[in-house]
Amino acid sequence: MKGERVLGAIEAGGTKWVCGIGTAADGIMEEIVVPTGQPDATLPAVVAAFEDLQGRYGRVTALGVATFGPVGVRPDVAGYGVIQNTPKPGWRGFDFLSAMTACFGARLPMVVETDVNAAALAESRQPANRDCGSLIYLTVGTGIGGGMVLDKRIWKGRGHPEMGHLLVPESSLELASGFSSCPFHQHCLEGKASGTAMRERWGSSAETWPDDHPGWDLEVDYLAAAVVSLTAGWAPERIVFGGGVVESEPLLPMVRERFLELAGGYWEAPPLDQYVVRSSLKNRAGLVGALMLAAEA
Amino acid sequence: MKGERVLGAIEAGGTKWVCGIGTAADGIMEEIVVPTGQPDATLPAVVAAFEDLQGRYGRVTALGVATFGPVGVRPDVAGYGVIQNTPKPGWRGFDFLSAMTACFGARLPMVVETDVNAAALAESRQPANRDCGSLIYLTVGTGIGGGMVLDKRIWKGRGHPEMGHLLVPESSLELASGFSSCPFHQHCLEGKASGTAMRERWGSSAETWPDDHPGWDLEVDYLAAAVVSLTAGWAPERIVFGGGVVESEPLLPMVRERFLELAGGYWEAPPLDQYVVRSSLKNRAGLVGALMLAAEA
Repeated sequence: MKGERVLGAIEAGGTKWVCGIGTAADGIMEEIVVPTGQPDATLPAVVAAFEDLQGRYGRVTALGVATFGPVGVRPDVAGYGVIQNTPKPGWRGFDFLSAMTACFGARLPMVVETDVNAAALAESRQPANRDCGSLIYLTVGTGIGGGMVLDKRIWKGRGHPEMGHLLVPESSLELASGFSSCPFHQHCLEGKASGTAMRERWGSSAETWPDDHPGWDLEVDYLAAAVVSLTAGWAPERIVFGGGVVESEPLLPMVRERFLELAGGYWEAPPLDQYVVRSSLKNRAGLVGALMLAAEA
Repeated sequence: MKGERVLGAIEAGGTKWVCGIGTAADGIMEEIVVPTGQPDATLPAVVAAFEDLQGRYGRVTALGVATFGPVGVRPDVAGYGVIQNTPKPGWRGFDFLSAMTACFGARLPMVVETDVNAAALAESRQPANRDCGSLIYLTVGTGIGGGMVLDKRIWKGRGHPEMGHLLVPESSLELASGFSSCPFHQHCLEGKASGTAMRERWGSSAETWPDDHPGWDLEVDYLAAAVVSLTAGWAPERIVFGGGVVESEPLLPMVRERFLELAGGYWEAPPLDQYVVRSSLKNRAGLVGALMLAAEA
């Protein structure tokens, strides 16, 4: 790492903050995990983690933050770096920029993004995806979220997308069940197909399900519907799935097959195993993306 | 128009081609409408129309084409300017670039876009929308289609979006009806909410409906669901509705109200009468966009 700038990266999630240190060339060199509590318990632990890391690797010269949302991601708009309407106790209105300034000093360059936007950026820069001008990253875990990279830039509109709240038709496997785990939407993807929805719908966690559990067919139906809508809405070159739920080995091949059926021959489909793929960075995409953002801060 | 470059614009639709001539400063100065038949009947009429127009205004120096899709819109990808998988008799595989070259000569700079992409570009440049960095144009007519402009550029992924084929939850007003006018998709927006769907579903054209026709509530439900999904997927600053169906005066205010209900308070909504608006260019957006594309060819 001789001559390389030392960079800090944070992935802030609902259960843990991952604090990483590294360089653009070497990537993340070491990380320390801090459990997510209220801000006034979490922040001192984060500061201590970075003091520890900096003691070994030197002062960080820039920081990238990949956080749960919703959060302000446009530096040109009021509320940049501020957590918005989250149900997580104590975090609504939390101001990353001010808090991190208190830790690292006012002059540290800093970038705040959503975890999925950062992950989309990281995935788009993996060798396998370098020829994709447009890529969607969709994570299916406790919740569902997505980010999009076009021509090497993270997509931002008025704010960031909330792809988990795309509406989806109710699966014919549960017509008019009315079930949704989302407190806001009766028919959104997250309410139908997140890990939380799977657990609440069937009474057990998907991690414990055998391959012939009926919940998988329902999950496949919803994820395939999401792929149809993302294809219709964005026409991306690749859709990368991350998150715990898609760790299940047979899931993505089934999603590809069901997508073909639901798409009804409308699109001249690209080879599906190159169109709907699994994250190569697995659960490290957000942190790796945060480091990339720090490098450009 | 002294000193101004003369530009040609074509909006190619399912029932008519509009051939326009103008300049960047003056906009469209005159247009001639040609009915859409098979290509070998339509093209000579288009050539004659432009000969007529050029006789009065001078030779065009560039041409912008806004066409029905699906069509290749990426100059860097094989199939640019070629009509893809359309049901319109005779038009599948039609090559705009070759055909127009035969009309205008090989050296005429030319841009081919979808009608809705061109319309989105034109809308994004209207004074009322100039402060919108991201804008979706959605037309609801015989079919449904949409285009997106971000930071003054037309969004393109692998090709162009097909927003009419976003999937939507079945409205609670017709649960499990199974009705869809789309031959490809049982649950897409176009199959549920296009003018064609409205006519086939209710047996009469929406233009003839009184304000209390039950079809309007259903239409509002679907368009509001589309606004939720577009908001979730893109987070645009503005959604502009065009097309014959939204000419009905009370429709958009009802869509705004229903959107608020379906959104369930998840988003901090911008003022809705600035978020969901009606096209200011009406049915001229595509042709105006085609002229803008010619100006940049």
